[in-house]
Amino acid sequence: MKNSFGTSVAVTLFGESHGEMIGAVLDGMAPGIPIDPAYLAHRMRLRQGAAALSTSRREPDAVRIVSGVRDGVTTGTPITLLIENTNTKSADYGEMATVARPGHADYTAFCKYHGYADERGGGHFSGRITAGLVAAGAVALTALSRLGIRVGAHVAACAGITDRRFSPDPTCELDALAGRDFAVLDEGCGERMKEAILAAREAGDSVGGILEVAVTGLPGGVGEPWFDTVEGVLSHILFSVPAVKGVEFGDGFALADMRGSEANDPFGMEGGRVVTKTNRAGGILGGITSGMPLIIRCAIKPTPSIYKPQMTVDFAKGEERELTVRGRHDPAIVHRARAVVESAVALALCDLLALRFGTDYLQGVQK
Amino acid sequence: MKNSFGTSVAVTLFGESHGEMIGAVLDGMAPGIPIDPAYLAHRMRLRQGAAALSTSRREPDAVRIVSGVRDGVTTGTPITLLIENTNTKSADYGEMATVARPGHADYTAFCKYHGYADERGGGHFSGRITAGLVAAGAVALTALSRLGIRVGAHVAACAGITDRRFSPDPTCELDALAGRDFAVLDEGCGERMKEAILAAREAGDSVGGILEVAVTGLPGGVGEPWFDTVEGVLSHILFSVPAVKGVEFGDGFALADMRGSEANDPFGMEGGRVVTKTNRAGGILGGITSGMPLIIRCAIKPTPSIYKPQMTVDFAKGEERELTVRGRHDPAIVHRARAVVESAVALALCDLLALRFGTDYLQGVQK
Amino acid sequence: MKNSFGTSVAVTLFGESHGEMIGAVLDGMAPGIPIDPAYLAHRMRLRQGAAALSTSRREPDAVRIVSGVRDGVTTGTPITLLIENTNTKSADYGEMATVARPGHADYTAFCKYHGYADERGGGHFSGRITAGLVAAGAVALTALSRLGIRVGAHVAACAGITDRRFSPDPTCELDALAGRDFAVLDEGCGERMKEAILAAREAGDSVGGILEVAVTGLPGGVGEPWFDTVEGVLSHILFSVPAVKGVEFGDGFALADMRGSEANDPFGMEGGRVVTKTNRAGGILGGITSGMPLIIRCAIKPTPSIYKPQMTVDFAKGEERELTVRGRHDPAIVHRARAVVESAVALALCDLLALRFGTDYLQGVQK
Amino acid sequence: MKNSFGTSVAVTLFGESHGEMIGAVLDGMAPGIPIDPAYLAHRMRLRQGAAALSTSRREPDAVRIVSGVRDGVTTGTPITLLIENTNTKSADYGEMATVARPGHADYTAFCKYHGYADERGGGHFSGRITAGLVAAGAVALTALSRLGIRVGAHVAACAGITDRRFSPDPTCELDALAGRDFAVLDEGCGERMKEAILAAREAGDSVGGILEVAVTGLPGGVGEPWFDTVEGVLSHILFSVPAVKGVEFGDGFALADMRGSEANDPFGMEGGRVVTKTNRAGGILGGITSGMPLIIRCAIKPTPSIYKPQMTVDFAKGEERELTVRGRHDPAIVHRARAVVESAVALALCDLLALRFGTDYLQGVQK
Repeated sequence: MKNSFGTSVAVTLFGESHGEMIGAVLDGMAPGIPIDPAYLAHRMRLRQGAAALSTSRREPDAVRIVSGVRDGVTTGTPITLLIENTNTKSADYGEMATVARPGHADYTAFCKYHGYADERGGGHFSGRITAGLVAAGAVALTALSRLGIRVGAHVAACAGITDRRFSPDPTCELDALAGRDFAVLDEGCGERMKEAILAAREAGDSVGGILEVAVTGLPGGVGEPWFDTVEGVLSHILFSVPAVKGVEFGDGFALADMRGSEANDPFGMEGGRVVTKTNRAGGILGGITSGMPLIIRCAIKPTPSIYKPQMTVDFAKGEERELTVRGRHDPAIVHRARAVVESAVALALCDLLALRFGTDYLQGVQK
Repeated sequence: MKNSFGTSVAVTLFGESHGEMIGAVLDGMAPGIPIDPAYLAHRMRLRQGAAALSTSRREPDAVRIVSGVRDGVTTGTPITLLIENTNTKSADYGEMATVARPGHADYTAFCKYHGYADERGGGHFSGRITAGLVAAGAVALTALSRLGIRVGAHVAACAGITDRRFSPDPTCELDALAGRDFAVLDEGCGERMKEAILAAREAGDSVGGILEVAVTGLPGGVGEPWFDTVEGVLSHILFSVPAVKGVEFGDGFALADMRGSEANDPFGMEGGRVVTKTNRAGGILGGITSGMPLIIRCAIKPTPSIYKPQMTVDFAKGEERELTVRGRHDPAIVHRARAVVESAVALALCDLLALRFGTDYLQGVQK
Repeated sequence: MKNSFGTSVAVTLFGESHGEMIGAVLDGMAPGIPIDPAYLAHRMRLRQGAAALSTSRREPDAVRIVSGVRDGVTTGTPITLLIENTNTKSADYGEMATVARPGHADYTAFCKYHGYADERGGGHFSGRITAGLVAAGAVALTALSRLGIRVGAHVAACAGITDRRFSPDPTCELDALAGRDFAVLDEGCGERMKEAILAAREAGDSVGGILEVAVTGLPGGVGEPWFDTVEGVLSHILFSVPAVKGVEFGDGFALADMRGSEANDPFGMEGGRVVTKTNRAGGILGGITSGMPLIIRCAIKPTPSIYKPQMTVDFAKGEERELTVRGRHDPAIVHRARAVVESAVALALCDLLALRFGTDYLQGVQK
Repeated sequence: MKNSFGTSVAVTLFGESHGEMIGAVLDGMAPGIPIDPAYLAHRMRLRQGAAALSTSRREPDAVRIVSGVRDGVTTGTPITLLIENTNTKSADYGEMATVARPGHADYTAFCKYHGYADERGGGHFSGRITAGLVAAGAVALTALSRLGIRVGAHVAACAGITDRRFSPDPTCELDALAGRDFAVLDEGCGERMKEAILAAREAGDSVGGILEVAVTGLPGGVGEPWFDTVEGVLSHILFSVPAVKGVEFGDGFALADMRGSEANDPFGMEGGRVVTKTNRAGGILGGITSGMPLIIRCAIKPTPSIYKPQMTVDFAKGEERELTVRGRHDPAIVHRARAVVESAVALALCDLLALRFGTDYLQGVQK
């Protein structure tokens, strides 16, 4: 299904960086969910990131909803979210059609589309396409929040500087993060990250980082033992967020070095509910939610667009050559990818919940 | 689709640890692929692991193919692979039906199946179910190998001991690994890992590790920019391998700490082909193969079954209690998971290739 | 997904007519549904049809359930149903490998599988494969019946002889049909059909017919406006029942000749429920169930295996030649297809209901 | 997947009759296919039907392509086709929100969407949504035509008047039909149909009909033996064309009355190719194409909107009442549905071909 993800609740992305419009179709969302334009605009702004750190391309990214919402409430039919591309300086890219930018998809796109893809600004591979995902994600986040399910991410690491990790109960932290442009738990740490980002920009270079996502309020018993495990479904959508090159759940790769006696989360009772006393498994056992918070971490590679000369090839001519990338590029996207990663997680969870509990579940009327 | 994975080439898994049979249906495999019973048996043995390190449950794991293969050659119709469960001592598990073993799916299975699931030996969640995946994977690996595509994994880390990583061209290493029971590149390192596994067993405990997979010979231009990225599809299936809690591609999480100038792989020409001079991206850019080797790493948590007393709950009674797990359990599964992970990767790649190049492609007649 | 059908509740079919085993995997069925071996055997017998009318190949068709059922109750994990082929006289077919039997899939199978398919007895195309569908269907019918949903078919036409149609409320008729080997509403009519079948056999020929299916007790609001309409989903699975060449809902093709004032079903209230006073729409409006009985009709072509000489080609040699089919063949399958068609409808409805109301719905605990 | 259809080539429909925009996303179409705006406009006009026979709502239906096409050629990424709703007189519908129009989806939509659906003009159930399908279908028809595959439909019956059927080789007939607004093979017959349509309008009533579709130039070996049969896939999409209540292939329901000796198509050789000398199977055997023309027939029920008073219920009040439908309605849609049905068939065939032969196949460069 390529540019669509989901079975019961599905999102389809379309558009190119320098085309006329980008956007998304969100299908299968329950009827009766109120859509708040201010919240939608807020989510779009979070994706744009703080002005001081981001690309010079600043677009209003106003989202037009042309179907599936009536009088501010979802109807249950496909929701189409359109975003115009207003600030497209294609001239910046003209000469690069067949010169592969290292770290970008120019060459692999050529292998796949035989030279027909719109390469301007990365075309359909551009991070800009995530604007559609964030718009659709705003609807998903609204639906989840009405069920008491919260999704939030912070920049757990950037340029080698590490934020503290989520607490065992991250509820208050999620509240705090929701309002922050640069999402960190420890704001002093965030300042140092911003400095490192600006230093990289100064050097014509870029930095990467890690996003840590927490989800609270999920019921137990969601997901499948094989293939459609919660980890499998979430990682599937997360790896299509550009620049994500690693995904782990709970303690993830750190579990590889532990002994079982350390890695196993002891069960206990708390307020009549079954809980685990630690959460190294990240809220998932056997592919299925336990009711504990989901903990997900994504590795974000450094922005591939840098201003230093790089060795590459002109794949039309079959010749090696040097390339200095021009145009407007962010020295980091990890802080912007936060809104994208939250959206991806929210969309996948809506699908898992609707599959498990039926298509009316997201309407939020049920207990 | 729950227990099925794949679109054009799809595998369905069934069975419970202590049921009558387990197995797989492999659908969509091209006709004309020879099935070598000796190779199939070899793959099943690799999954069982070296006797000295593994569980006392040793079954022949003879695979009966009851459909889809005639005169030793695939027919193109669904291939059904059956494996009998011969050595099922259910008494060992009897008392635990409602006592959640920490690190296991007992409690989440209860949330999902309301107490109807067969909990004996982990039931449908058992690592034993991977025998069906390995049987189906043997067919997939055969098909790929006829196209010059090689898939191999080694134990990159176990109990804190680290093997060296794959070389830029891992072809010879894949040859060497194919014959090894305990798959490491540096055999001295493997000896130390085995000692650490036995030490953990001695302590009634268990260890985890990391598997690194390489795939050579893949054409460029396979995969999709959004959602069905090669990373997304591979991680989706890999996270259903029990105990996998993290997946990364190329340099994965290590990319988070690099600068772009370090992380970008410069392109170059080699023998008339476009290559990258390093392979930090693990052979995938923009979700699409570049023709460079795929490099995938999976974190395997320590076996949750340990012999130390653990705190847990009886979720039927809603009471905390202590539990000491009995029965036969491996102190490590990372070396056995190697065959499973190779199978999962091979199956997903067959699907991606058939979707890209058509259902006859795996027949291997094409150039 | 080829040999699998369904999203939340999915069936996978495997096997060849003269292979070792045929069968099905039924995945996604809710836990807690009792499986009655006697009912399963009854359904298998219905598919075999009355002895006097059917092929000389009579097999016990005992179904072994090797996974997904414990102590006679579904566990929620994949249910594997195996049926051995015991009566396979392959010699009967030996010479025909490349001579296309008219009306059969020999030639199209060759185009698709390049000569590798097992052609003995029709191989994977054989009507015998429907035994797996009927076995899986027995589980689906059980689940539906616990929810008060009844599915039944009758031979609405055979050899030009027409049974009467279902009454507006077919409940009693469904009860009567359940016990009949040769399912007709008017048993006198059934006798004449049997005579016509025997007459066709006498003439070395075969006959076709029409099956009419009714489903009662379905809730309204199931199905989708586009693509996954109830008609679309049911027809999709029904056209894979061998020999089905037409599917219509409600008055179907007869609606083409009506005026709107005649075709529209007036709505009314009955016992506090919205009903339609006629049911020309067959219980579906806009692709979605209305709560009225579903009415579905399938055209079944005459059995293609006849004993008269026919003109055909040897597609290996590219030569025309005459062919006289040998072996054991039914002069009619419409009465046997009844069990298959009921199974197909039941499986598709289970999937639609689980998608709409969640995976626990089929457990039948809800209202 | 609800409002999406297809696996490798997929179409997603969105919009409501009186919303801001309707349209489609077409994903998976090969790169390099030229899009001719004049052909696109021509297809949109065919869907609108002849002015004299159609609704007073006449919209330009200009299609804006906002992604996936660059310099008039497909790029390989999702193609988004937008159509503005310019002529929406919602006042006509205001009072009917909870009064079920007989034959329409008002009541079933209420069951599904709990009153949140946009009911104006039928909302997402409106025949207007087919404009998006026709726009996407124009791209699919272009791709097929470059491969020598032709798709065309004629009004085989309307108001009880029957056109002649397609000839064994319908090539010339397809040419003739392409240019006709009211698609019949026998134009005298078409005149009588038009008179009957106008007579129905005069009477405040409506008429239905049958569309017969032919497809020439398809290769053999496409489709699957079970579930994804060509018949199953085509009927699945065809039943989501509003008003279609029956689908048959080849001689369809007429086969039910034949004997096998009459129904079987004898094979023969013609110009070195295997053909069948008749085509009662409609080009499909065992679910797989034979290389003969596909013949498909769809029953179209009469337009449900008529001007006669009808009995119905107000389902909010639970009361029976009389209803006289107002607004602009066609006395027949069978002639307009022709463009829709051709589009649906073309889209499904593109998907089947891309699955069989790979995603580059539709590019048309291959032999």
